[in-house]
Amino acid sequence: MSDPQLVAAVHGVLARVRTAAPLVHSITNYVVMNNTANALLALGASPAMVHALEEVEDFVSISSALVVNIGTLSPTWVSAMQRAAVRAGERGIPWVLDPVGAGATAYRTDTARALLALRPTVLRGNASEVLAVAGEEGATKGVDSTAASDAALDAASRLAHRYGCTVVITGAVDLVTDGARVVRCGNGHPLMTRVTGLGCSVSALTGACVAVESDPVHASAAALVLAGVAGEVAAERARGPGSLQVEILDALAALDGAMLDARARVW
Amino acid sequence: MSDPQLVAAVHGVLARVRTAAPLVHSITNYVVMNNTANALLALGASPAMVHALEEVEDFVSISSALVVNIGTLSPTWVSAMQRAAVRAGERGIPWVLDPVGAGATAYRTDTARALLALRPTVLRGNASEVLAVAGEEGATKGVDSTAASDAALDAASRLAHRYGCTVVITGAVDLVTDGARVVRCGNGHPLMTRVTGLGCSVSALTGACVAVESDPVHASAAALVLAGVAGEVAAERARGPGSLQVEILDALAALDGAMLDARARVW
Amino acid sequence: MSDPQLVAAVHGVLARVRTAAPLVHSITNYVVMNNTANALLALGASPAMVHALEEVEDFVSISSALVVNIGTLSPTWVSAMQRAAVRAGERGIPWVLDPVGAGATAYRTDTARALLALRPTVLRGNASEVLAVAGEEGATKGVDSTAASDAALDAASRLAHRYGCTVVITGAVDLVTDGARVVRCGNGHPLMTRVTGLGCSVSALTGACVAVESDPVHASAAALVLAGVAGEVAAERARGPGSLQVEILDALAALDGAMLDARARVW
Repeated sequence: MSDPQLVAAVHGVLARVRTAAPLVHSITNYVVMNNTANALLALGASPAMVHALEEVEDFVSISSALVVNIGTLSPTWVSAMQRAAVRAGERGIPWVLDPVGAGATAYRTDTARALLALRPTVLRGNASEVLAVAGEEGATKGVDSTAASDAALDAASRLAHRYGCTVVITGAVDLVTDGARVVRCGNGHPLMTRVTGLGCSVSALTGACVAVESDPVHASAAALVLAGVAGEVAAERARGPGSLQVEILDALAALDGAMLDARARVW
Repeated sequence: MSDPQLVAAVHGVLARVRTAAPLVHSITNYVVMNNTANALLALGASPAMVHALEEVEDFVSISSALVVNIGTLSPTWVSAMQRAAVRAGERGIPWVLDPVGAGATAYRTDTARALLALRPTVLRGNASEVLAVAGEEGATKGVDSTAASDAALDAASRLAHRYGCTVVITGAVDLVTDGARVVRCGNGHPLMTRVTGLGCSVSALTGACVAVESDPVHASAAALVLAGVAGEVAAERARGPGSLQVEILDALAALDGAMLDARARVW
Repeated sequence: MSDPQLVAAVHGVLARVRTAAPLVHSITNYVVMNNTANALLALGASPAMVHALEEVEDFVSISSALVVNIGTLSPTWVSAMQRAAVRAGERGIPWVLDPVGAGATAYRTDTARALLALRPTVLRGNASEVLAVAGEEGATKGVDSTAASDAALDAASRLAHRYGCTVVITGAVDLVTDGARVVRCGNGHPLMTRVTGLGCSVSALTGACVAVESDPVHASAAALVLAGVAGEVAAERARGPGSLQVEILDALAALDGAMLDARARVW
């Protein structure tokens, strides 16, 4: 079912993350900071969480990628996100936007749109968030999606064209589009929805992947496969959501070519 | 030893949390955000951590319950807690107050009292915190209690009458009172005191329970039994506090009627 | 290979932490708050994370030690760190400074130096951070060191003399110096570098140790041995970085005299 070229791209991305250990600057929410940092470390990247207005521009300038996640917002943080994104754009440093909870409040939707206007390399959300950012219906229940991924594909394509970015919609089947190509990934496990912030981890891992892969569609697909395969391996070992969270980190560190060949579902 | 009516209430609350998956808005401390969100997800609720002044009122308005926890305070956060609590009161959305560390500093005690004046549905603290909020002696050592639960029962009854709320005192035996009824819960395990923020998790789970059960005494008792039984199951599997934290999440997700019948100690 | 007197000091420190359960006030970064609190609880100390300007001075005054960690900075937090450090100095309460990421940005380096001027009891960093604080070359890659510990020993000695503090440089072999004595610790495991914030945990545990041991060189060495031995025990049980993080907490709680005698490498 998988496209061999895409699977080969995933192999290449994983190898380069481990060799280069790219520094990934994250401005992300309080809930997932520890897990996000550990997911990046487990994959082989070097994470740093830095948000002060006084240093975000300096820090992003020495980083290989930036990840901006609006899960827990406040005005000072939004300013820092914007400054970091602007500087990333100026320096040609790839960056990923995760519009957590867009659609739930006007503040979240507006913040997500203002950041999107700064032209991230990749926008990653669930279907509800992508629809909300695009100005379409599709209620967000808190931070969880109530819409299916395919329902948001048209909106994603339009966003990709308008902002020159790649859009990732995660769900039972994940979608990646740059407005021209559409890639799908079927990896993952339903138990992953019972652990907080695994979507945020995918965004962080996408940051590590865009740091080492210049095609953002391939980089995004790689992040989805790597996170999804790790989730499947972890789910086979886990007894519930608590152990799943732990096993995912172990699985990310243990990912190898044989696992990817056996499990990758990307087309 | 258990009261069959109370045990039946716990069964009903668990079933309704899993069916309704209530959105629980938490304004809580940095230390426990990840674990609190995961505890809510493991039980079957839908957590969201939102604290910006710009959106707390919007967010609480779409939520089924609010949890306010003062573990890591600052003035902006206190303002957000107050606005969210006022809006919850206006909309008839039940809310839970956790006065972490009340008694340790004047700032904490004053903040807890100002929030209590906004009339939460449930106040949950350890004995030292409840005594401090009530203006009585009982030293708090940092954020840990130095007093026994029963010593705080009179203070709890007075607070319940004065503020029209239900008060929960957690300890070796937990107490719940609305000033008229007193319910006790004996579930839990001593190793739980070696994991940070499990009291905060109980407050969060109480939020999920008051979202689906209109009697706050029953809702509070249900949260105590569910958390306590999960803790007991987890302690039998754990080798120490690290694995206990993981096992509790697995156990919350695995709770079923047979476990509750076999283990609930509530009267 | 170990110095019996130093091993005896470690035994004594562990016993006193467990007996006294010292209250350790931490002003630390968002990424590690949960793990740091759990590491302190697992060892037997009583952690509290408190950062509001309105209460840091009150809180440090009732604490047995203070830990200041600049991992996630902002101006308000820096002010709180300074106030708490000044008060700790006035009251003779020992405190530990962890200059996370010093050298990565000017803001971080300047903040670390301003705090160091307040004369902590112990400064703990990796080699890059210590070199950066001392004003010497040695690039910091984000928050990870690129220099070896011994390369920073001269800088550490000078800092120790200038600020009257003990300096700890963690790495494959850890170094402790007060400018006169030099102690080395060889405990630990390479997998520990794949878990975020274990250096921060060492700083926190150093806080617990200086609370019960008046010789900061002995206290620092004890923290290194305790964390390192726990890491080794955990690494033997772990399947990867996720389970390592869990196992370290279990191992800290399970540490006993026999384990220390068998494993301590301190000289």
